[in-house]
Amino acid sequence: VIVPPKLLSFLKKEKKFLIATHISPEADAIGSSLALSMALDFLGKITVLYDKHPVPKVCHFLPAHEKFTNIIPHSITSDFALILLDCNTLKRAGIEGRSFKYSAVIDHHETKEDFGDIKWVVPEAAATGMMIFYLIKELEIAITRDMAINLYAAIAIDTGTFRYGNTTAETLKTAAELIEAGASPACISHNLYETWSKERFDLLVMALNTYEMIDDVVITFVTREMFLKTGTAPEDTENFPAFPRIMQNVNTSVFFRELDDNYWKVSLRSKGDFNVAVIASHFNGGGHKNAAGYEVRSDLESAKKSLLKGLITCQQHERE
Amino acid sequence: VIVPPKLLSFLKKEKKFLIATHISPEADAIGSSLALSMALDFLGKITVLYDKHPVPKVCHFLPAHEKFTNIIPHSITSDFALILLDCNTLKRAGIEGRSFKYSAVIDHHETKEDFGDIKWVVPEAAATGMMIFYLIKELEIAITRDMAINLYAAIAIDTGTFRYGNTTAETLKTAAELIEAGASPACISHNLYETWSKERFDLLVMALNTYEMIDDVVITFVTREMFLKTGTAPEDTENFPAFPRIMQNVNTSVFFRELDDNYWKVSLRSKGDFNVAVIASHFNGGGHKNAAGYEVRSDLESAKKSLLKGLITCQQHERE
Repeated sequence: VIVPPKLLSFLKKEKKFLIATHISPEADAIGSSLALSMALDFLGKITVLYDKHPVPKVCHFLPAHEKFTNIIPHSITSDFALILLDCNTLKRAGIEGRSFKYSAVIDHHETKEDFGDIKWVVPEAAATGMMIFYLIKELEIAITRDMAINLYAAIAIDTGTFRYGNTTAETLKTAAELIEAGASPACISHNLYETWSKERFDLLVMALNTYEMIDDVVITFVTREMFLKTGTAPEDTENFPAFPRIMQNVNTSVFFRELDDNYWKVSLRSKGDFNVAVIASHFNGGGHKNAAGYEVRSDLESAKKSLLKGLITCQQHERE
Repeated sequence: VIVPPKLLSFLKKEKKFLIATHISPEADAIGSSLALSMALDFLGKITVLYDKHPVPKVCHFLPAHEKFTNIIPHSITSDFALILLDCNTLKRAGIEGRSFKYSAVIDHHETKEDFGDIKWVVPEAAATGMMIFYLIKELEIAITRDMAINLYAAIAIDTGTFRYGNTTAETLKTAAELIEAGASPACISHNLYETWSKERFDLLVMALNTYEMIDDVVITFVTREMFLKTGTAPEDTENFPAFPRIMQNVNTSVFFRELDDNYWKVSLRSKGDFNVAVIASHFNGGGHKNAAGYEVRSDLESAKKSLLKGLITCQQHERE
């Protein structure tokens, strides 16, 4: 992976950066933003970390996570340059309409958009955290323990802790280097995967009880009533669609969560070569090959029906 | 890690080997045995692979697993040397009473036994697969794709795919090298973790519905009626006690499965320093610090009560 020289000179030249990442952030968005800001601090730069949504609880073990703000401070003036991380449009970061003196995009999501004075998009990178690792090395800054923990968590979450198809020898060598720099694999895994509240576990059991299997598709859902009953919030459903995937015959796991009356967020997880980003984009959503999503305004039964219809069409196309 | 020169010369000198591993084998036992036998085949040796129990279904993707036998062939005569893998007593391999011209133990479990003419025991090794990796390199044999898959699976299963405390930078570097030799992380993870039957998943959902939490203890159970209803068998509950562990406040996960009328097998899983082997041995069972079990003849409610009483006593002892 080659870091664009233009990006390096931009980071060296500018003095003030707004680092913004996508709404509903996870450990890759948060962790790679934090590691990048630490590297820029080291170069004597001023950085402001922004996410429209609060840092999720599961990321509260990440060093310096409290530096994130969800209100763009008044101090952000026209002399700030923008770095968009782990996303590639202002809209995805919830800052549409704003303008910046200069902007750079660092992302591993496929994109058709043309935003950014500098665009560094590497879909082959398992995580944006991998790209920030290369970038920090290219800047000849030593990886600190705090950077290592943030980057390890970023890479862990986006590879299912080295279980997904995006895991390569390079991924594991990078992770090994981050351990040597001070990241603890067991401690990070515990924080990412074993810190559920009882309420969240109750919600999972409820969600699993809703499961239905249609050919190789499993559908589960969570209603607002279930959130209310268990005292949980939509962010507590992180990772729910992964559970039915343990079944051999499941190719696609679909998870519906109710955000408002007749308003659902749909998460799709697939195995192997079946590309769920195609079907998500059909419903004006997006994502990766094996993890995508969209939002839909309708009742649950209609939403299920139109999705299943779409899935069947997609599968037929793939077979052709 | 230094491979004992005595072990290397033993492997080079002897011509015929019985490679035996422990009863109820998992991917570390099976995978490291297979990789070792492939290396010895390469040196022109004759190897016989033995396990008292059949290779479990979850290991049927391992190259050459069909070479395992669960009957020691008559062809095994006094000119065979024994290699005990991933265990360190004849009893643990179910071959007590047999004698061999010479024997070597290769294992990463702590041992108080003194069996073996050569003993290579490395408790710091995350898996026996790590040790076989070092051994094959020391023998200057190139790691083939088949060896790589077997060793990767061995290391993956014993580290929770790089999530447990035994995962080090060295573990990940070894795994990276095995990927370069042809192991596919996604394919191996899929085979290890995502090959559940629908019936088994149904049983899991039923088991999770039974959960109750008493302080930091979670209890789940499966009755014979549930096995019958879902068309599953007791071995389908493998890994069930792990699920409630995702809750932060759970210290011990207890899982009861009904084997016969008023006859229960109890599995205990703990986190951190709480030793469940102590309580298991109180009920004439056994195991490791974080994973132990026993059997009990009584109705479920009485079994729960006496266990909880025992757990409270153990916890008080630990606090003292």
